[in-house]
Amino acid sequence: MSYTAELIAVGTELLLGNIANTDAQMISQGLSALGINVYYHTVVGDNPARLRSAVDIAKGRADIIITTGGLGPTCDDLTKQTLAAAFGLPLVFHQPSADRIADYFRRLHPHRPMTENNLQQAMLPEGCTVFDNDWGTAPGCAFASGGVRVLMLPGPPRECRAMFEHRALPYLRSLSDGVILSRTLKLFGIGESAMEARLREKMNAMANPTLAPYAKEGECELRITAHAPDQEAARALIAPVEAEVRALFGPLVYGADVKNLESAVLQLLKDRGLTLGAAESCTGGLIAKRMTDLPGASAVFRGGVVSYTDAVKHAVLGVPEELLTVHGAVSPQVARAMAEGARRVLGCDLAVATTGVAGPDPDDRGNPVGLVYTALAGKDFCHVKELRLGASGRAGVRNRAAHHAFDLVRRRLTGLPLD
Amino acid sequence: MSYTAELIAVGTELLLGNIANTDAQMISQGLSALGINVYYHTVVGDNPARLRSAVDIAKGRADIIITTGGLGPTCDDLTKQTLAAAFGLPLVFHQPSADRIADYFRRLHPHRPMTENNLQQAMLPEGCTVFDNDWGTAPGCAFASGGVRVLMLPGPPRECRAMFEHRALPYLRSLSDGVILSRTLKLFGIGESAMEARLREKMNAMANPTLAPYAKEGECELRITAHAPDQEAARALIAPVEAEVRALFGPLVYGADVKNLESAVLQLLKDRGLTLGAAESCTGGLIAKRMTDLPGASAVFRGGVVSYTDAVKHAVLGVPEELLTVHGAVSPQVARAMAEGARRVLGCDLAVATTGVAGPDPDDRGNPVGLVYTALAGKDFCHVKELRLGASGRAGVRNRAAHHAFDLVRRRLTGLPLD
Repeated sequence: MSYTAELIAVGTELLLGNIANTDAQMISQGLSALGINVYYHTVVGDNPARLRSAVDIAKGRADIIITTGGLGPTCDDLTKQTLAAAFGLPLVFHQPSADRIADYFRRLHPHRPMTENNLQQAMLPEGCTVFDNDWGTAPGCAFASGGVRVLMLPGPPRECRAMFEHRALPYLRSLSDGVILSRTLKLFGIGESAMEARLREKMNAMANPTLAPYAKEGECELRITAHAPDQEAARALIAPVEAEVRALFGPLVYGADVKNLESAVLQLLKDRGLTLGAAESCTGGLIAKRMTDLPGASAVFRGGVVSYTDAVKHAVLGVPEELLTVHGAVSPQVARAMAEGARRVLGCDLAVATTGVAGPDPDDRGNPVGLVYTALAGKDFCHVKELRLGASGRAGVRNRAAHHAFDLVRRRLTGLPLD
Repeated sequence: MSYTAELIAVGTELLLGNIANTDAQMISQGLSALGINVYYHTVVGDNPARLRSAVDIAKGRADIIITTGGLGPTCDDLTKQTLAAAFGLPLVFHQPSADRIADYFRRLHPHRPMTENNLQQAMLPEGCTVFDNDWGTAPGCAFASGGVRVLMLPGPPRECRAMFEHRALPYLRSLSDGVILSRTLKLFGIGESAMEARLREKMNAMANPTLAPYAKEGECELRITAHAPDQEAARALIAPVEAEVRALFGPLVYGADVKNLESAVLQLLKDRGLTLGAAESCTGGLIAKRMTDLPGASAVFRGGVVSYTDAVKHAVLGVPEELLTVHGAVSPQVARAMAEGARRVLGCDLAVATTGVAGPDPDDRGNPVGLVYTALAGKDFCHVKELRLGASGRAGVRNRAAHHAFDLVRRRLTGLPLD
């Protein structure tokens, strides 16, 4: 059978527009990959009567209700009380959760006494499945009542994502008959609409597996989802579709079920026993930050220099002053000198560099926002690429410039053309 | 009187998680500034029956319903039909809108004939106020029926924002009395529950202004919101509460209506004409990245060194090899040498440094995950602080370590104790 779900986000900050409901987006993606239909998202404030009304409506139209938010220690946090009451369940004290909360608090704040209200988070609906929270204090939970399954997750996006992936998904998977298996191909260097245009006929013709495109931050994903009696049968459905997509898009596909471009690069460097370094101007540390977001980065990433001024480019990376004066900091010549300088100074096998105009304004020489040079230097080569990323805003320019720098490394290490 | 509003977003792409409902965030901010209370957001797919059901529920509980999406030319686009039917209004052909659509199409696609379905966008509820769309083809509209006001706006975020600001806001302003004004105090160095425990009595006793606490990523916010006849009266209500909160939390309050800690630091550095640099081990570029996320960072941020290996700490920052051998990279001695080295190498007035164990595993010397030393060096001082951030996960350790580094700078520049 096919389940329908409704998401209820609880938090006045959402109704005030302080944050967007990204939890709903993340959970919807996950449910859609499981084949669970989401028919409504509801957002309601920290108000028990209105939350109760939203829950009563949802009870009448959904098989699964997933709430986010309102599990914390403050008096605003009333999701558990309200949901438990709506389904006629008492809240009971859950000692293991109380211990975890006390322990979490102690590790995070060794010198600060825990306040009583933190322990309120250990009050949970009687008979529920407890979702231990390894990413914060408030435990989540799930229960079934009157034909409806209710799952409660914390609201802060980082916690919500981890709790959804590691706690809610396994619980939801156990409800479905057969398995739903997804494999996600990741692409860089093509836009979503161009990708979709090339796949549209194929996508419309397919029922199992399905093919769904997603775009995010200058990258594209293509999710292949199969429904089958078991894992092996699902994999057998997916394999030929994956082969077809790979044949269609060739080197634009940088990986499957890999988190992001930098993860792919990290793996390639590890496999080949090579080290990387970075010299960053317009990306301002983003390349190093993204690389070191990954556990295990220290095996291949030696470090970086954020040279946000000409003086640092010269003094630390050894970029000749003449290049800076004649061509300016935003030039292919300086990008090359930065990459070669970083390789020498950091003692790494490969070094990437970025220099460009992130905006919001053009630079002193009149270079437009979004003009970026990215370079990759190795033992006996240096390749410079010019990028025009004007329309994506400051954060977009920086992110895409970092994507391109990582993509240069990937292409070099897999023997693909660099342009 | 005070109005209540409900937002209904129409679009299956929202339920699939392809995009987040940023239209709701944008509109909520605008409504909250007008003093209109938003009690619910609802998201529903391109399905007439479910949309009708959402509208019927909203009719019973809101004074104002604002829809986004579903105004376009494809067969999915059914918002106008459904809303008109729900309020018993016929759709009529609006010639000026048809002319605008034809004209817009001609300018955008001079060589392509316009298809018939584009003109369906000119069918509008009888007697409505038409919102001309200068940013796309689909006009929006507003009508009042049975005590409820309905506004319909296009879904694409860029169009939606322009239509809201230039068409919906003037329409709504004519309805409202008074203003709602918020001021957000930002705190670092205290947990949400501790903050709330100290404020609970006060919060419960207050009606106007209200006081609401929020936590995010190791920082806390306290929002003071006043409802008053005009801006000045609202500010007069907020001022004494802000003074009281500042007196209560003292140096933990780092700013009001400021984006984040690094923005506060950027402003302090600008005001004092000082420059900053960073030497990062465990934060791996995050400090530089966060600083350079801010437009205008180049006025004060000279650059950084991401020294992810001992060799780079020694070669680039000049950390003595002996310190690395004797005390190890994760030590107060190395943190100090990194900060002092960065200051010298980058030529900046102040330099921060971080070295620690971000995890997931303890380091080779058995230092636990979350042990971090952060240092701040200036002309004639260097201060090192030991942090224990164990429970927050790799990303949390890195983020909080960066927070603490920024906080050291803030404290130094405002003459506060560094510990």
